[in-house]
Amino acid sequence: MSGTARLIGVGVGPGDPELVTLKALRVLRDVDVVAHFAKRGNLSRGRAIAAGHIRRDAIELPLLYPVTTEIPKDEPAYGAKIAAFYDDSAAAVAAHLEERRSVAVICEGDPLFYGSYMHLHVRLAPHYPTEVIAGVTGMSGCWSAIGAPIAQGDDVFTVLPGTLCEDELARRLADADAAAVMKLGRNLPKVRRALDRAGRLGCAMYIERGTMADAVVIPLADKPDDGAPYFAMVLVAGWKRRPNGKQEREAR
Amino acid sequence: MSGTARLIGVGVGPGDPELVTLKALRVLRDVDVVAHFAKRGNLSRGRAIAAGHIRRDAIELPLLYPVTTEIPKDEPAYGAKIAAFYDDSAAAVAAHLEERRSVAVICEGDPLFYGSYMHLHVRLAPHYPTEVIAGVTGMSGCWSAIGAPIAQGDDVFTVLPGTLCEDELARRLADADAAAVMKLGRNLPKVRRALDRAGRLGCAMYIERGTMADAVVIPLADKPDDGAPYFAMVLVAGWKRRPNGKQEREAR
Repeated sequence: MSGTARLIGVGVGPGDPELVTLKALRVLRDVDVVAHFAKRGNLSRGRAIAAGHIRRDAIELPLLYPVTTEIPKDEPAYGAKIAAFYDDSAAAVAAHLEERRSVAVICEGDPLFYGSYMHLHVRLAPHYPTEVIAGVTGMSGCWSAIGAPIAQGDDVFTVLPGTLCEDELARRLADADAAAVMKLGRNLPKVRRALDRAGRLGCAMYIERGTMADAVVIPLADKPDDGAPYFAMVLVAGWKRRPNGKQEREAR
Repeated sequence: MSGTARLIGVGVGPGDPELVTLKALRVLRDVDVVAHFAKRGNLSRGRAIAAGHIRRDAIELPLLYPVTTEIPKDEPAYGAKIAAFYDDSAAAVAAHLEERRSVAVICEGDPLFYGSYMHLHVRLAPHYPTEVIAGVTGMSGCWSAIGAPIAQGDDVFTVLPGTLCEDELARRLADADAAAVMKLGRNLPKVRRALDRAGRLGCAMYIERGTMADAVVIPLADKPDDGAPYFAMVLVAGWKRRPNGKQEREAR
């Protein structure tokens, strides 16, 4: 088979398989190779979303993280392992591209927004024809699922990784009209304290698997510090002067 | 016809009709009424994206802004006109819901992210069964089109309306790792000055109609102050320590 080398980062959205775009669908059905990231021993979340659209005769290329949250990411051991993993993954994808195959890399959410695909993109896009297909982000999926208008008019909206230190989180939460805090996991108690210090805990919502049938949606104030998945999220909606006045009373 | 009253905010993505989700497609083909916002005398951009998916026998309900950018939005005349418009639009949608029709409101991008639909949502969702279908945002469409990894790891990503004052824009641009500045239009010269003051002009990209065949993509430094559409956007990518080192050199 002598086709064309093409790398395509394919956003498949936040979880609900119906939130895949027509473009992602077309590409998934068309490519020779489908690559997907997962933690070793786990199924790929992105692949699960796209499962119905992958051809049976497609070559599958699982890219398995040697480590995720077991080692703190500021430790040199983490950095070395993960850099080698991305180098190896890029080489595995490049091997298919060198054989003139088209390779779709499945990305949960949107490929270039905090996605693992970005590590392949910066290594391969300078050398091979590359396309990125935007996807619905996890945060859009969450605020749509709970029906929360997140930002309006002159609102400043900020995305904060829960990995930031408490002081930094508190300062930035106080300075934004609306916010999404991602990468919760073990950071949940710290994020809660930061929201409290910023006077925003009362209007913060905690969400797991926002677009799925088994979604968990509760006010953060009611969520115990008993652990949260890494992909859980906290949303603080803006639009303080909305017509029904609700948000205005809730905000500080 | 005695159906079920349902309000559905339907995100149809950033412009490319292929970036519509399967869920949006299903709902558009299923509903009794399709509503869409547009400036009086103009075609609805959202409707144009969804055009191929609207049933011929669907009832169409255009919601036409009496005014958009002709009157500065801090003038009382603007606020009064626009509030009356949203009240009237909500009443027009409610009239169909009272007749037990399902009504999809087409939203460019994502419905609850700076979208006009939000004004209907806060007025109607407390009274009728309501669902929101997340869409690909305009900013995701833009950074995907230019292949720019926007935010990674511990990056803080901020969305700034270009309507903010120059000091506020400069302060926030200096304080974020990555940013999207929306609502450019007449704010372009001010946004450029703010980026310059924040030391970020050199890595800012200017984008019009990012996902369309006639997209305009140029470094902001090369874009003259000769006018920009309201929906044009400036992106400042984060991830300063990416493996190829490119961004690190460009950033201050």
